[in-house]
Amino acid sequence: MLKLANIYPSLLFIFGVSMSAFKQLVDHSKKISHFKHLSAISGWDQATVMPSGGNQARSEAMAQLSVHIHSLQTAPELGELFDKAEQQPLDSEQQATLREMKREWQQATVLPESLVQAKSLAGFKCEHAWRTQRKDNDWQGFEKNWAEVVALSQQEAQIRAEATGLSAYDAMLELYEAGTSSASLDTLFSNVKSWLPELIDQVIEKQSHESVIAPSGHFARETQKQLGLDVMKLLQFDFDHGRLDESVHPFCGGVPSDVRITTRYDESEFVQSLMGIVHETGHARYEQGLPKALAGTPAGEPRSMGIHESQSLFFEMQVARSGAFIDHLAALAQQHFASHDAKLMSKANLQKLYTRVKKDFIRVDADELTYPAHVILRYEIEKELINGNIKHTDVPELWDTKMQAYLGLSTKDNYRNGCMQDIHWTDGAFGYFPSYTLGAMYAAQFMNAMKQSVNVDSAIQSGDLSPIFTWLGDNIWSKGSLLTTDELVKQATGETLNAEHFKQHLMTRYL
Amino acid sequence: MLKLANIYPSLLFIFGVSMSAFKQLVDHSKKISHFKHLSAISGWDQATVMPSGGNQARSEAMAQLSVHIHSLQTAPELGELFDKAEQQPLDSEQQATLREMKREWQQATVLPESLVQAKSLAGFKCEHAWRTQRKDNDWQGFEKNWAEVVALSQQEAQIRAEATGLSAYDAMLELYEAGTSSASLDTLFSNVKSWLPELIDQVIEKQSHESVIAPSGHFARETQKQLGLDVMKLLQFDFDHGRLDESVHPFCGGVPSDVRITTRYDESEFVQSLMGIVHETGHARYEQGLPKALAGTPAGEPRSMGIHESQSLFFEMQVARSGAFIDHLAALAQQHFASHDAKLMSKANLQKLYTRVKKDFIRVDADELTYPAHVILRYEIEKELINGNIKHTDVPELWDTKMQAYLGLSTKDNYRNGCMQDIHWTDGAFGYFPSYTLGAMYAAQFMNAMKQSVNVDSAIQSGDLSPIFTWLGDNIWSKGSLLTTDELVKQATGETLNAEHFKQHLMTRYL
Repeated sequence: MLKLANIYPSLLFIFGVSMSAFKQLVDHSKKISHFKHLSAISGWDQATVMPSGGNQARSEAMAQLSVHIHSLQTAPELGELFDKAEQQPLDSEQQATLREMKREWQQATVLPESLVQAKSLAGFKCEHAWRTQRKDNDWQGFEKNWAEVVALSQQEAQIRAEATGLSAYDAMLELYEAGTSSASLDTLFSNVKSWLPELIDQVIEKQSHESVIAPSGHFARETQKQLGLDVMKLLQFDFDHGRLDESVHPFCGGVPSDVRITTRYDESEFVQSLMGIVHETGHARYEQGLPKALAGTPAGEPRSMGIHESQSLFFEMQVARSGAFIDHLAALAQQHFASHDAKLMSKANLQKLYTRVKKDFIRVDADELTYPAHVILRYEIEKELINGNIKHTDVPELWDTKMQAYLGLSTKDNYRNGCMQDIHWTDGAFGYFPSYTLGAMYAAQFMNAMKQSVNVDSAIQSGDLSPIFTWLGDNIWSKGSLLTTDELVKQATGETLNAEHFKQHLMTRYL
Repeated sequence: MLKLANIYPSLLFIFGVSMSAFKQLVDHSKKISHFKHLSAISGWDQATVMPSGGNQARSEAMAQLSVHIHSLQTAPELGELFDKAEQQPLDSEQQATLREMKREWQQATVLPESLVQAKSLAGFKCEHAWRTQRKDNDWQGFEKNWAEVVALSQQEAQIRAEATGLSAYDAMLELYEAGTSSASLDTLFSNVKSWLPELIDQVIEKQSHESVIAPSGHFARETQKQLGLDVMKLLQFDFDHGRLDESVHPFCGGVPSDVRITTRYDESEFVQSLMGIVHETGHARYEQGLPKALAGTPAGEPRSMGIHESQSLFFEMQVARSGAFIDHLAALAQQHFASHDAKLMSKANLQKLYTRVKKDFIRVDADELTYPAHVILRYEIEKELINGNIKHTDVPELWDTKMQAYLGLSTKDNYRNGCMQDIHWTDGAFGYFPSYTLGAMYAAQFMNAMKQSVNVDSAIQSGDLSPIFTWLGDNIWSKGSLLTTDELVKQATGETLNAEHFKQHLMTRYL
């Protein structure tokens, strides 16, 4: 055995003293990104291939790495470097880079160390217990731990609010969707609420007269994987810079030069895993298409969680659920599962399976049409909670009321399938939920704009989807975080976010 | 997509000021081990599953990590902490821990930063070019880069010699085999040289009258893997704390709680990969058996490269090439490759395949009997080179002379299969080679001692090898680096290293 360590020489980097402040900040940013790279790969490993007995040592190593990354992000010399860099003559790309570096730095430094630590521990404790409590529908047990997570998140929001001049909730939103306010979300979501519940009812009524063949039989995992890989090829996933693997909770991880997507296979059907792969491929192609020249700086990173989700949903909802693409899916599925019932895998049946609407409890299992209702409900509750207008113990009742109003379902005493179903609040990630529906809206708007210059249907029909990816690459991926979200969307589509495109998309597809 | 980073809270560790110096050193050691953990996993990933396009960013991230680890290892406050800790009352385990921490610290700090950097870069450059130059038999090209690697290694050895009071070469040896001197190696290897060449000739003559069936046909990779996994189970590899994967160069990596071994499969035969898996399983079980209470400190690490190799060779040479174990291999191979020629997989034929002796050029392909000749040749040359008694340009001729003397083969003008065949010298890892043959010798001595109290053959025959692993666990694995190598070997076998056991083992097996 030759020790692996010998194979990797330690190339030492020298930190020049005469370097400009801006250049020093960029180098520091790249240094942080190297450690984030290691965190991403170790996290991927933990979720996909790590044997169970490795968990404790891995968690400790990753916690140590988090501490190190945090210490780099809050290094005391950065304040002075930002002051100096702001005096330098910079071109527009450098200005954007500086803006994003400063935003990240401010977000990392504004909280006292003790609060960061307390919130981490409270979230860790709450999440750990939640994994059992959720199964047991144990609201009383959960509520005790969650009280602290909420209190610490409120403190965090308050401090961020004072630093930014925003409201408490808006300051949290800023972590995931820079530049998006609750005022704009209120407008967008009010619009959606004005037509969505009725549309859902109409569609369910319409679909009740249709017959659908549900998958039955055995769909071998390895065959599903091969089918998934074929679909990823159709979507031009770059396998020199990424992989497909399995994990309990599907995700897109890794780094832009090596994007790791995962899925899980249920051998009693193949449709869910297949669309899951399409979704993660959308995330992955955004990462793979980020500007390489800006790699390692915040300006080279994805714009926001909502824009990230817009890419996965563009792939999943705009492209893959179109008739032209389902033609490909049907052909590939019939080829891989040749011994199964071909009618199940007919275009018409797959299309029905992939557009089936049902009012149900669980967000992650929700269809395209009911999904926004789940998100709006969470948004409305978490906004009031973080702004201190309601108590955490008010949440179950509020949840029940809103579920009844939006989806006609009661969650009374059903915490497991109500407010205890998601990991986000458990961990204190308040402000994250709106990104999902913002993503769906951006995706619809991008498709509408794309169709002005690209013959999308014929590109999909031809099997060469390059014109679609060229448009996304030019307008979204290659921009990284150089533009603000509003600028990005306006440059790509001629207007800022407009919920009308989402409405039109849903009407056209479902009515 | 929920960002993975949110799932891992940053558990912050507080560094107490009133903590004893010894405790602070232990905590610092554990901190370093967390980063080494990440390095091991990222290195495994790079060698096994990383897509090619991910290489540059990964190499940069790992280089940054190396720099960080080095800066932790050489932190300025450590000198004072060691001084203070040496005044503390410590029990024997703590004393050993302190001794090993100090040894690692001294080895890391003794070299000036500039030399570490220059040697890394020279090694990196030389190795990179060597990958092509070796194929092209380009000694002239190689020699130019190698001159610098040798010169810098000589400088390194000189500085380490002054710090330790050892000779230059012995100071390098100390990096891999603490406590082993070239004087003792001269004695051991002279002994081996006095009987090995004649023994090789005798065995080759004897084997020339035997007939062996060479593998033919197709041995599917997946079937080989299943066979390998079965053999790992027989060897009680702990799959809750480890994995088997594939890589171009087989290795044992990861961390004790998660040991990653690799192999490569050649579908035209299965015997090599199978024995490769046995070898790496030996390394792995040593790692898995290290003392958990000392995890993260040098006292909890493997004793030396030679002792590490003794465990892989114990598994490969002492256990797996025994008749009783080959019985198992034959049965398993016949079961997995049921459609192949059973005679090929008969016990008698496998035994012949696994003990075939041939004089040949390449160390890594060498059999048990000729292997020591390859190592002794390298030892004799590198010792003179590092001690400054010969020039690097003298090496090819010296290699040819010694190859002729020990194995009757000429490497004149055949650099590719001569002194350019290994990565060790290319990278400047002088002092490493003796570990391989020390390992073989220790393994033979351990087996001899084990047989005083354990009925090894009957344990193997029964298929429950626990008594063997209990002995190794008690005498070797659980000791970590608490004892010096001499103490470890003496406590386990009643004497320090004695080449006679190795000779007896070879005589018994091959004559």
